[in-house]
Amino acid sequence: MINLNDALEVISNSVSRIMASERIALPEISGRILAEDIFSDMNFPSFDKSAMDGYAIKRAEIDDDLRVVEFIPAGKMPELEVVDGCCSKIMTGAMIPKGADMVVKVEDVLRHGDFIKVVQTASKKNILFEGEDVKKGDLILSKGRRLNSVHAGLLASVGAVKPLVYKKPLVSIISTGSELVSPENFPGPSQIRNSNSSQLQVLAVESGTEVIEATQVDDNEQRIFNMVESALAKSDIVVLTGGASVGDLDFTSRIFDGLKAVTHFTRLGIQPGKPVLFATIGNKYLFGLSGNPVSSFVQFQLLLKPLIARLSGNKEQDRIIKLPLSEEKTRKKAERQLFFPVIINDNMEVQSIEYHGSAHLNSYQSANAMACFPIGVKILKKGDLVDVRPL
Amino acid sequence: MINLNDALEVISNSVSRIMASERIALPEISGRILAEDIFSDMNFPSFDKSAMDGYAIKRAEIDDDLRVVEFIPAGKMPELEVVDGCCSKIMTGAMIPKGADMVVKVEDVLRHGDFIKVVQTASKKNILFEGEDVKKGDLILSKGRRLNSVHAGLLASVGAVKPLVYKKPLVSIISTGSELVSPENFPGPSQIRNSNSSQLQVLAVESGTEVIEATQVDDNEQRIFNMVESALAKSDIVVLTGGASVGDLDFTSRIFDGLKAVTHFTRLGIQPGKPVLFATIGNKYLFGLSGNPVSSFVQFQLLLKPLIARLSGNKEQDRIIKLPLSEEKTRKKAERQLFFPVIINDNMEVQSIEYHGSAHLNSYQSANAMACFPIGVKILKKGDLVDVRPL
Repeated sequence: MINLNDALEVISNSVSRIMASERIALPEISGRILAEDIFSDMNFPSFDKSAMDGYAIKRAEIDDDLRVVEFIPAGKMPELEVVDGCCSKIMTGAMIPKGADMVVKVEDVLRHGDFIKVVQTASKKNILFEGEDVKKGDLILSKGRRLNSVHAGLLASVGAVKPLVYKKPLVSIISTGSELVSPENFPGPSQIRNSNSSQLQVLAVESGTEVIEATQVDDNEQRIFNMVESALAKSDIVVLTGGASVGDLDFTSRIFDGLKAVTHFTRLGIQPGKPVLFATIGNKYLFGLSGNPVSSFVQFQLLLKPLIARLSGNKEQDRIIKLPLSEEKTRKKAERQLFFPVIINDNMEVQSIEYHGSAHLNSYQSANAMACFPIGVKILKKGDLVDVRPL
Repeated sequence: MINLNDALEVISNSVSRIMASERIALPEISGRILAEDIFSDMNFPSFDKSAMDGYAIKRAEIDDDLRVVEFIPAGKMPELEVVDGCCSKIMTGAMIPKGADMVVKVEDVLRHGDFIKVVQTASKKNILFEGEDVKKGDLILSKGRRLNSVHAGLLASVGAVKPLVYKKPLVSIISTGSELVSPENFPGPSQIRNSNSSQLQVLAVESGTEVIEATQVDDNEQRIFNMVESALAKSDIVVLTGGASVGDLDFTSRIFDGLKAVTHFTRLGIQPGKPVLFATIGNKYLFGLSGNPVSSFVQFQLLLKPLIARLSGNKEQDRIIKLPLSEEKTRKKAERQLFFPVIINDNMEVQSIEYHGSAHLNSYQSANAMACFPIGVKILKKGDLVDVRPL
């Protein structure tokens, strides 16, 4: 049995080559990982511009009557210099005309025909100076960033309309188990619906992969072998569920061996989810997850998400935060890290959710995080800081 | 000028009809809002099942040598009752045979031919009893839930393979401003690239809408009017940027009036983002956001997201949490709520990010939350709890 931190190091070290990259359109970037450094091709602002609707004046003449010689809307080049005794009406975002060193807000001015008088003297210049936010050549966004709407705006502002991002890892999901029926059917006696497949498909997509196949198969070693072999040919990651333990029908380990994969671990010091296999063949990754959906959910969160992040060039680690527990929680055995569903409440306390064990998927339905009992710890007291992984 | 809470009430009250619903496939549910209550069509577990690989025995006979009469893998109906002196080998998830009331773990047993001897006496039954997690007819998921991977598993487990969800609101985005050039072009003197459009497209999609159109137009009142009118015909929400203030070229207000829309507010007590219009025509919603991308980002977060949630039937409120500030922060004026970009660090403290004001989109690129100065407050001390909106 390997502990979680060691398992994560094994997984991280197993990645020798991250995904290839591709260029995509800006509206598609949400959640994608940037595969290039982005530098600004210009200053921001790119010219001295007005922060206000108002009048561009010479500051020294703020007490004088000034003649309005030009109207400068945003997007227009000023045609006239502001010379002594003159000013220009200017709109927010428009270029400051030569000669002016201040913009007086429109509200602070009385206008009579072509003349203005500043009635409310302020000291603010209301000018955004060229390059004060960003200089041409500045690094704007680094390779490895997970992109969001703000980044879309930034990329647009420097003309990076087809940013280079890492391709999404391709995932195949194979649910094994003779007890499984497809969810649209009512299970016969001794059968259950396959809920794992739907869960993992959504989880894989939410984690930044593309699911290319989700199949289901009986506990038949040869058939499973064939499906894994075929999935491997077209996927970066193949996820099996069921058969991960050491029972008579737990074929996963033998199948990985038969495929000449290198199996890195088969049992992990976590609860739920101890029986879990991780193997590699070249740049392909194989997981044997539990057949029950709570265990496979926890295993995916703990193992697959970091692999996917690493493989996709994502440099932003999934966060583990420390928050106080809202009430005491105990357990009997402490050989493994125990993960349990919790709600982070508005006071930023961690409340645990009723949880019947690894078959009880319903327990996670209202969870917004997973919390953790460390190895060796049987009592967590109210107020103790616990490790929390937001979901 | 209206304050934010009043504006949110106005927005909420303006929604008289939420979106129609549609059925979608399970793998597509991520982020969608459930439009029906889901009840379980069966007990969970649906039969007494083994929690372990082991032997199903009569507990009273735990000290006896027992003959193994059957092998029961998951998915198979037991054929034989466990009678006195007998037991059945059973796999995890398989149905408990009649007569047995306990499963002994395979590790706790010595086997000789057809007989076993329990060598490690444990008291746990290792049986998951029918209905112990969920009873047939129980409410599993309520209308209004935002769906995720766990819900996909739950829906699959009760056969809800085509859940009813609310349709996504359709959004059109119109960027106005003669200074704007399309992001693929290098801006001429006095021009800027249109970054708002890309930002808002991604933000709208991330917020659960479908963007059907994103267009750009000069400061020409008639052309803007025509585009808004055309966008209204096919959208639930039309978002304009630029022209929201009261300058000579700020047409938005007049355009909304010309369309016979009811304008609910035009100025909001927030900073950045004071000039912002909200109007309605029947079940259509019109926003006039700022032309600068930080203001429009903040306005979208504060106003559009709650509208989209309300319109989409989403009953989960966006959370505002309270966290301590990592260092003192001051401001000069306090008439409006000031929103500023922050990072919530691993100690769950709020660190503010260098921020030059409303044109400085770069400031939000590393933010994971927005924090807030309340109205009337000029100093926030280190350690003060501030309202934080995770992004």
